[in-house]
Amino acid sequence: MRNLTLLTDFYELTMMQAYHNAEITTGRRQTAVFDMFYRENPCGNGYAVVAGLAQVVDYIKELAFLEQDIAYLRSTGVFGEEFLAYLKTFKFTGNINAVPEGTVVFPGEPLVQVIAPLAEAQLIESAVLNIINHQSLIATKAARVCWAARGDRVLEFGLRRAQGPDAGLYGARAAIIGGCYGTSNVLAGQLFDIPVQGTHAHSWIMSFESELEAFRYYANLYPQSCFLLVDTYDTLKSGIPNAIQVFSEMRESGIALEHFGIRLDSGDLAYLSKRAREMLNDAGFPNAKISASNDLDEYIIAELKAQGAEISLWGVGTRLITSKEYPAFGGVYKLAALSLDGGEWQNKIKLSEDPVKVTNPGIKKTFRLYDAASGKMKADLIALATEEFTNDCDLTLFDPIATWKQMRLKAGEYIIRELLRPVFVNGECVHTPLTVPEICDYAARERATLWDEHKRLVRPQLMPVDLSQKMYDLKKEMIEQLRRE
Amino acid sequence: MRNLTLLTDFYELTMMQAYHNAEITTGRRQTAVFDMFYRENPCGNGYAVVAGLAQVVDYIKELAFLEQDIAYLRSTGVFGEEFLAYLKTFKFTGNINAVPEGTVVFPGEPLVQVIAPLAEAQLIESAVLNIINHQSLIATKAARVCWAARGDRVLEFGLRRAQGPDAGLYGARAAIIGGCYGTSNVLAGQLFDIPVQGTHAHSWIMSFESELEAFRYYANLYPQSCFLLVDTYDTLKSGIPNAIQVFSEMRESGIALEHFGIRLDSGDLAYLSKRAREMLNDAGFPNAKISASNDLDEYIIAELKAQGAEISLWGVGTRLITSKEYPAFGGVYKLAALSLDGGEWQNKIKLSEDPVKVTNPGIKKTFRLYDAASGKMKADLIALATEEFTNDCDLTLFDPIATWKQMRLKAGEYIIRELLRPVFVNGECVHTPLTVPEICDYAARERATLWDEHKRLVRPQLMPVDLSQKMYDLKKEMIEQLRRE
Repeated sequence: MRNLTLLTDFYELTMMQAYHNAEITTGRRQTAVFDMFYRENPCGNGYAVVAGLAQVVDYIKELAFLEQDIAYLRSTGVFGEEFLAYLKTFKFTGNINAVPEGTVVFPGEPLVQVIAPLAEAQLIESAVLNIINHQSLIATKAARVCWAARGDRVLEFGLRRAQGPDAGLYGARAAIIGGCYGTSNVLAGQLFDIPVQGTHAHSWIMSFESELEAFRYYANLYPQSCFLLVDTYDTLKSGIPNAIQVFSEMRESGIALEHFGIRLDSGDLAYLSKRAREMLNDAGFPNAKISASNDLDEYIIAELKAQGAEISLWGVGTRLITSKEYPAFGGVYKLAALSLDGGEWQNKIKLSEDPVKVTNPGIKKTFRLYDAASGKMKADLIALATEEFTNDCDLTLFDPIATWKQMRLKAGEYIIRELLRPVFVNGECVHTPLTVPEICDYAARERATLWDEHKRLVRPQLMPVDLSQKMYDLKKEMIEQLRRE
Repeated sequence: MRNLTLLTDFYELTMMQAYHNAEITTGRRQTAVFDMFYRENPCGNGYAVVAGLAQVVDYIKELAFLEQDIAYLRSTGVFGEEFLAYLKTFKFTGNINAVPEGTVVFPGEPLVQVIAPLAEAQLIESAVLNIINHQSLIATKAARVCWAARGDRVLEFGLRRAQGPDAGLYGARAAIIGGCYGTSNVLAGQLFDIPVQGTHAHSWIMSFESELEAFRYYANLYPQSCFLLVDTYDTLKSGIPNAIQVFSEMRESGIALEHFGIRLDSGDLAYLSKRAREMLNDAGFPNAKISASNDLDEYIIAELKAQGAEISLWGVGTRLITSKEYPAFGGVYKLAALSLDGGEWQNKIKLSEDPVKVTNPGIKKTFRLYDAASGKMKADLIALATEEFTNDCDLTLFDPIATWKQMRLKAGEYIIRELLRPVFVNGECVHTPLTVPEICDYAARERATLWDEHKRLVRPQLMPVDLSQKMYDLKKEMIEQLRRE
C-alpha cells in the first residue's frame, strides 16, 4: 500500500490549519460527524453494491505526513510551522463505522460514518470519497452485467481501457465483488486471490504462417484451458473449421477435452454463436464453450440472450471497467453533527432547493428490514443513533417525502438488522478484514435478498428508504427553524 | 513508482510462454513491431492530446518479476519452470519510439511504436495502453474545457469522483497538460510541480455559528488567497453580502486585496454571477474574481460564456476527471511487422469489414506538415520508415480512402517534421524527461498550430491524416493478396 496522505484536496488542508489554529488560539475544539452517502443509483439501477472499504482501511492506517510531505507543504507558503509540526505527528484518532463491502445499498443512507476531530474528518474526505465512489461504481455496474448474463460466467477484461493502473486493479476487485467470475488482470489475481483467465490475441494468430498452425501450437501448450480466438481471418470459413480440426486432433491423441472452446470477438454475436454451436455440435463437441467479447455491456448481453445467442462465457471490457454510460458514482460527504469541546451534539443540516438534496441531520443508525417468511428485503430505515428497534413490535414505515406512502410490518413477521459496523474506534482499527472471495460470497447472498423486480436493468422497482419518526421530526423541525431564520 | 510488472492481461503471459517455448524448442525467434494508435477522437473533438509517456517510461524501466510474482505465477499451474526462470532475469531489451507528451495527435497515427522481441512487446501491451489511454483521454477533455473557457483559468477539482487514486493523480497531471491552470489535488501538486488551489467547503461555514463569522475567520487566516464560498445558505441574500462585508473589513484594515473573490457552487451560474458582479462592483470590488463550480463541462461553460456570465475562474470536477460523456480513449496496439531470426521484415495487416479498422502495415514514420507562412498545421503523413521527406520539393497528399481528395504543397512553402522520437534503444532509455510545466508549454504551442476551426467543440474541421504513396501501395497490395487467399 502506498502512502496516500497527500491524496487530498488542497482545501482540506487549509481548513485543517484553520481548525487547528482555532483550537490553539481559542481552545475551541470541535468533533464532527460526517456521512458519506450517494443520491442516485448508477445506470438507473435499483440498488448499488458498496465496495472499497478495505482500501479505505489501509489508507487510514497508513496516514502519515512524511518529511518530504511537510517540506512540500511548507514550500506552498500557505502553512505555518505550528501547523506543520502538528502534521508531523498526525494520526487518525476518530471513529469510523461503515456498511460492509458487498452490501446492497440505496440512495441517502450512510455508507461510511466518520466521527472524529473536525480537522481529521476533513482531511480524509477526498480519499474516502475517491475510493468508495470508484469501487462502488464498478461493483454496481458488474452486478448489472452479471444479472444480464443470467448465471453465465462473466470475466472482467478491461485493464487496457481503465482510467489508469488503479482503475484497472481496484476496478477488477470491484467487478468480482459485483459478481464477475474472474479477470484478465494478473496483478488483481495476485493481490486479491481471484481467478485470472485469458485466451490469446489476434497478434498470436498473425505471428504464425497460418491460423491452423497457431491454433495447434496453442492447443498443444495449453490443452487444459484451450479457448481459440476464431475471428482473425474469417470466423465461419476459417476460424471455426480450424478450431474444430484442432479439437479433433486433441481428441484423437487422447486428451480429455474439458475447459475448451472458442472466442468470438467481432461480427454479429447472435448469428455467429448459433452457427458456431451447430458446427461444434455437428463435429461432436457439444461441450465446447462459446465465449464472446467486443464492447459488451448489460444491454447487449440481455439482447443477445433474448435472441438465443449460444454464448455461455462473456468477456466484458471497456464498458464495465469505466462504467461507460455512468462513469461517476456521485457519493458525497456531508456534515451531520458537531460537538464543541466534547459537549452535546448539535445536529447539522444542509438545505437545498431540491428535496432529495436536503441532508438528513444528526448521528444515524441504519436498519434493514426483511420479510421473515421469504427472507427478502422490505425496506431500509434511517434512524437516530439513540433509537433501538427490535422485531417484537409492529412497525410503521413511511416515505419521507410522500408521507402518505406507508408500510406496516407486523411483530415477528419481519427481521431487522443494523447496517453500519465499527471499523475504527478511537483511531484503532477494529475491522476484521475479509478476503475478496469471502466478500463475494457475502455480496451474492446480499443480492439474493432482492426480488428480481429490484434487479431489472431498466426502471426497476425502487426499495423504500424511510426515516424513523424521530429522524423525520428532527429534520422537519430543523428545516422550519432555518426557514424562520 | 510501484512495480507494475504484473499489471498485464493474463493472455500476454500465456502468449509469452508460448513464444519463449517456441524459441527454446525450435530456435524460432521473432522480433515484432507494434503500433499503439487510436481510431476516434474523444467527445467528437477535432484532435487528441497525447499524454502519459513519462509513466510508460517509468513502467518499462521498473519491469522486473519479483520473487513473489514468480511464486504467484507458479501457483496458477499454467507456467513451466523453464519459463519462470526466464522471467526471473527478464528485462525489456527492445526499442520504443513515441510522440512527445502534449503533442496534438490524430486518429490512425502511431503514438507509441514498439520494436522488440515478440514476447517482450506482448507483455507491455496492457500497461502501455492503460497509461496512454487514460492520460490522453483526460488531456484531450481538458483541452476542450479550456478552449470553452477562452483563456480563463480552469482548475481541476475532480479527485473525489475520479476512478481510483491513480485516476485522480495522473488525471490531474493530464488535465494540466491539456491546459488546466491548476488542481485541487495536493499529491499531484507535490509530484508534478503544478499549482494547487482551493477554497473551503460548505462544512466550513456550517462549523461556525454564522456565515459571516466563518468568512471572517477564513479571510483573517488566508488574506493572500481569499475565495469565499457563498451558497451555503442563500447566495444573494446572505453569501455575497457577507463576503462583501468581510472584503470591506480587510480593505479597512489595510490589506492589499489581490487574489480574492467568491465561489458559486449551485443555482443558475449565469444569473448569479451577473448579480454578484454588480454587487461586488457597487461595493468597490471590481477586481474581486468570481469563480464557479458544480458539474461543469465544456458545453455548459461555452453556454455560460455566450450568456455573458461574469465568471473568470472555473473549477471543473467529475465531468473532466472521468471524461464523463466519453470515458475511454480506445487506443489499440496492433502488430505491424515481424522478423524471424533477425531476417527481413514481413509486413502485417489486420483486415476488417470496416475500412477504418483495417490497420496500416509495416514499420512507420509519421510526419507533420505546416504551412510555412502561418505556421499552422496542414496535415499529417504516415509513411514507411525507409522514406525520407524534405520540404525542397513539391508534395501531393491524398486521402487514403477518398483518394480523389488531394492537397498539393509547394516546395519551400511548407515545413515538415517527424513526430516519433526514440525513447528506448536496445532497452536503454534515451528519453530526456521533461517537467510537467515544460510539457505544458510545449502542449500550448502545439495547440496554437491548429486553426480555431479544428478546435470547435462540435463538428470541428478534421485534420487530414494521409498515407504516403508507398504506404498506400503497400497496404493496397496486401489487402488484395489477402483477398486472393
